[in-house]
Amino acid sequence: MTLFTPKGIPVASFNACGTKPFIGASETPHTAEAKIDFVYPEVPFPSNLLFQTWGEENIRKMVRHHHQLLRKSVIGNLFPANDEMFNFATEKTADFFVEALGGEKCYTPIHGHPALRMRHFHITIDEKGREIWLMMYKKTIKDLHMPDECIHEFWNWIEPLSIRMINRRTTTADIQRHAHDAIWSEV
Amino acid sequence: MTLFTPKGIPVASFNACGTKPFIGASETPHTAEAKIDFVYPEVPFPSNLLFQTWGEENIRKMVRHHHQLLRKSVIGNLFPANDEMFNFATEKTADFFVEALGGEKCYTPIHGHPALRMRHFHITIDEKGREIWLMMYKKTIKDLHMPDECIHEFWNWIEPLSIRMINRRTTTADIQRHAHDAIWSEV
Repeated sequence: MTLFTPKGIPVASFNACGTKPFIGASETPHTAEAKIDFVYPEVPFPSNLLFQTWGEENIRKMVRHHHQLLRKSVIGNLFPANDEMFNFATEKTADFFVEALGGEKCYTPIHGHPALRMRHFHITIDEKGREIWLMMYKKTIKDLHMPDECIHEFWNWIEPLSIRMINRRTTTADIQRHAHDAIWSEV
Repeated sequence: MTLFTPKGIPVASFNACGTKPFIGASETPHTAEAKIDFVYPEVPFPSNLLFQTWGEENIRKMVRHHHQLLRKSVIGNLFPANDEMFNFATEKTADFFVEALGGEKCYTPIHGHPALRMRHFHITIDEKGREIWLMMYKKTIKDLHMPDECIHEFWNWIEPLSIRMINRRTTTADIQRHAHDAIWSEV
């Protein structure tokens, strides 16, 4: 998507721009236009349907299951090696999911605003890391039999949300989207 | 700077948005708006004034001097440890600068389009790495007495150009700019 400045000047992404022939300096200087990397899409938060339907304990089990899958994955090294630290991180994430999905305020009073992008800056998260995080949620949802009527809203939240954690780019390509209908029709 | 979609919907940066109070799920879903990270500013390429004034050999010396400074800096680990490899990388960069500044086509016929952002993806370059790269050029320009009348154009090229190599974000803050007038008034 091409965005525009307030004055109507287009600012395309590196990917959309492609590569023009390289021109060395001559007597007349030229200018390469401003660019953006990519647009982090909007994030539709879910209603409290999942919380109402599944309850806090299932949401906590979901987060624990997901973290166990991540730990065994190729991005397992991004998580604490120490069991106690790993479990602490897992429960903190579970607190976030419980509060975000409509449960009690068990995260923000202790940790403050989630500010998820900022909170993940100390971990290198590239496009592939985000893919794995997301696909492990797909497996978790199936493994734990999340109620069918809740999957759409939940997926449409975590899919764009996961993009916000990307802080290391390894390509100019657009971020791969995984629309609910595409990813769940095959299940 | 806030950018707009073709339909006039604003897409601000993470930095410009700040942090709104966190709202957990209720019966009514809400949506976090789309965002960008930052705008990579336009890059004004220099004329061939520096090449005409200083010549190829001084440009090559400049690149070698800069690389030696980088090698001794805290980002020295981003460069090949092996001398032969390091010198090969240095001479390739010198070829690029010679061609880009108006000299003979000694880079693109061998290596193809510079595509500098893409070419640097295998190296982790964060905001601090870019600062060091740039400040080592400031020192190089002074150490080697680049002709005064050429500094403005050269600096106004490499300063925004260096931003394009950033592929690891560690903050939502805007990228620090180093305008020619601000950076050279103190010299």
